[in-house]
Amino acid sequence: MIAEKMKPYLQNNSAIRAMFEEGKKMAEQYGADKVYDFSLGNPNVPAPEKIKEAIKEILDEEDPVFVHGYMSNAGFPHVRKAIADNLNQRFGTNFSEENLIMTVGAGSGLNVCLKTLVDPGDEVIVFAPYFLEYGSYIRNYDGVLVQVDPDTESFQLNLDDFEKKLTEKTKAVIINNPHNPTGVVYSEAMISRLAAIMEEKQKAFGHAIYLISDEPYRELAFDGVEVPFVTKYYRNTMVVYSYSKSLSLPGERIGYVIIPDEVENSGDTITAATIANRISGCVNAPSLIQLAVAKCVDSEVDLGYYDRNRRTLYEGLTKMGFTCVKPEGAFYLWLKSPVEDEKQFVEAAKKYHILVVPGSSFACAGYVRLAYCVSYETIVHSLPEFEKLAKEYF
Amino acid sequence: MIAEKMKPYLQNNSAIRAMFEEGKKMAEQYGADKVYDFSLGNPNVPAPEKIKEAIKEILDEEDPVFVHGYMSNAGFPHVRKAIADNLNQRFGTNFSEENLIMTVGAGSGLNVCLKTLVDPGDEVIVFAPYFLEYGSYIRNYDGVLVQVDPDTESFQLNLDDFEKKLTEKTKAVIINNPHNPTGVVYSEAMISRLAAIMEEKQKAFGHAIYLISDEPYRELAFDGVEVPFVTKYYRNTMVVYSYSKSLSLPGERIGYVIIPDEVENSGDTITAATIANRISGCVNAPSLIQLAVAKCVDSEVDLGYYDRNRRTLYEGLTKMGFTCVKPEGAFYLWLKSPVEDEKQFVEAAKKYHILVVPGSSFACAGYVRLAYCVSYETIVHSLPEFEKLAKEYF
Repeated sequence: MIAEKMKPYLQNNSAIRAMFEEGKKMAEQYGADKVYDFSLGNPNVPAPEKIKEAIKEILDEEDPVFVHGYMSNAGFPHVRKAIADNLNQRFGTNFSEENLIMTVGAGSGLNVCLKTLVDPGDEVIVFAPYFLEYGSYIRNYDGVLVQVDPDTESFQLNLDDFEKKLTEKTKAVIINNPHNPTGVVYSEAMISRLAAIMEEKQKAFGHAIYLISDEPYRELAFDGVEVPFVTKYYRNTMVVYSYSKSLSLPGERIGYVIIPDEVENSGDTITAATIANRISGCVNAPSLIQLAVAKCVDSEVDLGYYDRNRRTLYEGLTKMGFTCVKPEGAFYLWLKSPVEDEKQFVEAAKKYHILVVPGSSFACAGYVRLAYCVSYETIVHSLPEFEKLAKEYF
Repeated sequence: MIAEKMKPYLQNNSAIRAMFEEGKKMAEQYGADKVYDFSLGNPNVPAPEKIKEAIKEILDEEDPVFVHGYMSNAGFPHVRKAIADNLNQRFGTNFSEENLIMTVGAGSGLNVCLKTLVDPGDEVIVFAPYFLEYGSYIRNYDGVLVQVDPDTESFQLNLDDFEKKLTEKTKAVIINNPHNPTGVVYSEAMISRLAAIMEEKQKAFGHAIYLISDEPYRELAFDGVEVPFVTKYYRNTMVVYSYSKSLSLPGERIGYVIIPDEVENSGDTITAATIANRISGCVNAPSLIQLAVAKCVDSEVDLGYYDRNRRTLYEGLTKMGFTCVKPEGAFYLWLKSPVEDEKQFVEAAKKYHILVVPGSSFACAGYVRLAYCVSYETIVHSLPEFEKLAKEYF
């Protein structure tokens, strides 16, 4: 007697659980150090020491009624101001605390944006490959997910197909930069072209089309690559951010949404998003961790660790003959399956205790995702196993 | 261009903001100690010292990758086990960790239950007076709120009207015990009668009707009154709990949902609720505070503080001639307006810098709510002002 709407999720969930259980069984059978699990995007680099110090300082110095109490549904004003000031300094933006709403991570931030914007039947465009949960989030508001085909050359935005998929019904477009699952970073030129197309379509259709930029990996960019700050290129942009990866706090559920003054009817939009945060049941982002991140706006995790993993894995695999997209951001490597059906390849890899996620889990068959947010030892010890796997194909 | 569905909320929000702004202005004008603000349900008694110790201990002793990392969407298994064991010991229940899902407070817990159960057009029954946010939560899933008239004698459940309002379309019934805004505690006899009616209707209609028991005030009960544990009286019960009041952690957003094995098709229901927790965007309840509450299952805030406030306010106001429901739980006093339109009374009270919430904000005109989770000094100093107010009527 659960809701009809929930029933399709039950079946899909069993598949995810089966994969998870298989990984656990493998670790029990062969020993965790003999299993090379690249399936989970759970950061392995610890949160900066400063987070711990900040939390202790807050507990020691502040009134617990304040620390653990309700605040505005948008979050503590001084926390929002500290973050806005930091963004303004780094990106030349001009946000005040009024433009920020603290949220229960990026997952909740995306839901806040979609609840604010989407009526039943509205179309929301996503670019394949994409995090399949976007589909659940869009369905939460009875929106219709419209998928842009991947550009399998570069895995940058396929703007030709995008232009065709934009319709009268398009209410919003979601991009994710740096990108899960490909590790690609969309360049300034790419974002500018995207913005130009959206501007033109807004005019043609006579209504706003919102760009939702999902940026939990913003700080995870390598080789000096720049991640463009999207509000500077397109007016009707909302940015969704999370500290899950930049400060390794995924379990804490802390992030924010930015709605700039430039957004059409921004006052009402900010108010509606704040109400969405409240009536979703979240009410507000968790208080203690809000206070802690405000003290750590300049902190970062050890990016060098991910970078070494990235280079070692990319170089190792390409040398063996695998074709990979060179990852410039996030902590994912996107590898072309040497056989058409990548699920066969995923199965073959298991023989060597290597766990990877099939691209069809990101709406892009023929590829697999490796999450390299694992120990360096796992990377190093996996390479001889990948070598054996490679010999089956090359 | 915000969603049509969000527009009605914008207008209502201005009214709430106006009230809040008025209170702030009053405090600035007359000094905060000369304003008697009984409008907010924000606990003023601090969290137990043990919460602070537990958090510090966790930060010092545990691996940050574990403390701040992802866990199962239902929460850390050992946290759920600690809570289940504590409940079993106190209430003679038989829960395992599988029956608990940690949530982002009770607000999110209620949404998890409703998302799990409610399809568009399904009816959800609530008892007036009630927390108006229930309406937002039910609308999130396109459910239809059906309101049971208040029993203005006792403010216990009006079961005669309830029986009439139960239809083929009833999917769920929400009760809140101890009760906001009346301070009433529903007795065992009352819950038994409610259960009997629901059992009968389940049989008559041939499908499950779920009872959702919203219990953030469970531990706030006075005069030795017992708060019945509802799963023992009715099979298809889900309990929604929060540590907001019992441990004074409202800003932390930490609570749980219980779905007992006795619930129809409990396995699928638990799975669906766990998925609902994930796809709502919450993903999981905040991790550090999950770990902290597990270490504090036996802790409580200083209930004596609330109790003294309760007795002082109730005795003071009844002596002056006001008619109040004797509060046995939560931290609210429910007072009958001496004039039919309680909004007039709310305005009159402002002359004496007394802020209270009109009953129409809880779908029950003719009454006002006083939240006595304020300092004892506020209570004491407000009484002479209430005396002046009383003289306008009696």
